[in-house]
Amino acid sequence: MATPAPAKVIKDAAKDVAQDVTPDIVDAQVILTPLLDALDIVGVAVFALSGALIAAKERQTFVTLAFFALLTGVGGGSVRDLLIGAPVFWMTDPWVAAACLLVALAVWFTPTRWWDGKLLDYADGVGLTAYAVLGSAKALSYGIPPVPAMVMGVVTGTVGGIIRDVIAGRPSILMRPELYVTAAALSASLCVIGSVLEGPRLLVWTGAALAGLALRGAAIHYNLSLPPYHERRAATDAEAQQPD
Amino acid sequence: MATPAPAKVIKDAAKDVAQDVTPDIVDAQVILTPLLDALDIVGVAVFALSGALIAAKERQTFVTLAFFALLTGVGGGSVRDLLIGAPVFWMTDPWVAAACLLVALAVWFTPTRWWDGKLLDYADGVGLTAYAVLGSAKALSYGIPPVPAMVMGVVTGTVGGIIRDVIAGRPSILMRPELYVTAAALSASLCVIGSVLEGPRLLVWTGAALAGLALRGAAIHYNLSLPPYHERRAATDAEAQQPD
Amino acid sequence: MATPAPAKVIKDAAKDVAQDVTPDIVDAQVILTPLLDALDIVGVAVFALSGALIAAKERQTFVTLAFFALLTGVGGGSVRDLLIGAPVFWMTDPWVAAACLLVALAVWFTPTRWWDGKLLDYADGVGLTAYAVLGSAKALSYGIPPVPAMVMGVVTGTVGGIIRDVIAGRPSILMRPELYVTAAALSASLCVIGSVLEGPRLLVWTGAALAGLALRGAAIHYNLSLPPYHERRAATDAEAQQPD
Repeated sequence: MATPAPAKVIKDAAKDVAQDVTPDIVDAQVILTPLLDALDIVGVAVFALSGALIAAKERQTFVTLAFFALLTGVGGGSVRDLLIGAPVFWMTDPWVAAACLLVALAVWFTPTRWWDGKLLDYADGVGLTAYAVLGSAKALSYGIPPVPAMVMGVVTGTVGGIIRDVIAGRPSILMRPELYVTAAALSASLCVIGSVLEGPRLLVWTGAALAGLALRGAAIHYNLSLPPYHERRAATDAEAQQPD
Repeated sequence: MATPAPAKVIKDAAKDVAQDVTPDIVDAQVILTPLLDALDIVGVAVFALSGALIAAKERQTFVTLAFFALLTGVGGGSVRDLLIGAPVFWMTDPWVAAACLLVALAVWFTPTRWWDGKLLDYADGVGLTAYAVLGSAKALSYGIPPVPAMVMGVVTGTVGGIIRDVIAGRPSILMRPELYVTAAALSASLCVIGSVLEGPRLLVWTGAALAGLALRGAAIHYNLSLPPYHERRAATDAEAQQPD
Repeated sequence: MATPAPAKVIKDAAKDVAQDVTPDIVDAQVILTPLLDALDIVGVAVFALSGALIAAKERQTFVTLAFFALLTGVGGGSVRDLLIGAPVFWMTDPWVAAACLLVALAVWFTPTRWWDGKLLDYADGVGLTAYAVLGSAKALSYGIPPVPAMVMGVVTGTVGGIIRDVIAGRPSILMRPELYVTAAALSASLCVIGSVLEGPRLLVWTGAALAGLALRGAAIHYNLSLPPYHERRAATDAEAQQPD
């Protein structure tokens, strides 16, 4: 018969309650899961490492190292999942939180210089741009419109680090002119544009991640930064305020 | 027949899962949407403007301006929606995030003094009190009891600014004696009281917003502020501590 | 017949949408509610008191006292509920927010020294460890796996205080070597381990809370603290960095 199976009707009705957000959950699971699960845990671990290292450099206790590893590792993805209405990813996965605690243990028992340096910066760049793509793609798969989906990519990549800096009382990555948030924004934008234009998924994702990573890599290598507000713009304003 | 349509039964059952929160969603949409949609986007834009201006004055890059515009513009409403269990408003609306980015662009290409001054303070007061009313009304329409609904009004009006200040490393509006949070609390309280007493909705909302705005306007014009803890209260305590 | 009642089927289907999280809601309500409701409001009040006192000591206004009471009182539980996908507890309970406001009133009209001192530290320790147990138990009852459920216990006990410190611009409890977060982690871990081993619920909960409280009490009484990163570990690292 043409009648849909009752279970499906019921599930669809239940989904409708979520008001306009039509979480394309099954599709997202089938496609995202096998491809991105490994990447996901690597991203969490890299961010957790950066959180634990900051706590270690401030001579904190193991408990603080573990807390920083966790909130830096899962912070961005948690905020994304809450905003798009998805179950928070590390609540249903028994390994993510454990991975963060293992990273904290590894940092605790080793000198920080083992981990630090340019290599960590590049690894962080990989996590940042991969997460920007993953975050945008997940938001789109939950029916979020393009502009907020792009923002979700940036949020996924950067909010963990922002929370880490705020709690540690450090100047936030958000306030530095480095091309950091910008690299995430580039990857997220390309991912959304490519998806809206229905480009081949693997190509769009890989291209978007590599473009952001290239920008971030160039920024690390050549110390590139964005111009601040006053230099290029509003010269009149700056002059007018000189007497102050 | 008296039997309700199956789809409705199913939807109602799905809603029941949300445990005691009976989101009066249809009613809320019909009544709130046409009246408040325009106000909503104006509120977002005013708050986004205040966020972008703070970033511009700290000589930040465009990416930082955009991030601050966004988190100040949508922060309060996002926290409210998460707490009351509603879909986050700017996730289903393609224009809210775009409006914040446009505001950031406008600030980037103009001198900050174009925007600053008393006029912005009053515009911010309009956004604050309108949001306090909107937040309380939305919470009530989702079945939240009166006291937490009042708190949701204050949260909607002030949390965007609090997040902005925390990330920028500035003293929070919460810590200043200005009648700012208080104006939001007045509007939210009047809205909740009027709604519980089943006053005519338009009158309650308008009156609540205007009362808060009058208080905030007086505070701006006459530099009014609340008394701090030690002046009026606990004089004995203060004296006892003098030897310190 | 063996056919389940239609309403149950529908509700189950609706729950399935929540993807793998199988909120054992009915069970949680029946068991947790009568036993822990009183404890819950006491925990909220103790945390609210600590928030209001900090605002009072910084000579803030009543509105700020109330805001700090509220966010310290309900912050940890709110983040937990959002992460595990439960309705936020104080949104469905008309008394929690009111209790926080009453605590703020009590602090406002009394000298802070009435409240302060060792007794408050111990009361705070009771709230901390009780909340760690309550948070873990609630997470487990929502089908969260063991490690993240343990983290939820720590989050419930500590996040309110962390938000309070961040907004007040104080060094976070997270950054101090005191056995504070550690006591919460001990209680949460014991609760999760006991629950996974299916120990008798009341015994597990009481034992877990008392163990954490004993640790916290010893830390208060003997000024115990955890070793920081550099003292015990990575001596080579410290030596290598001496020339800096």
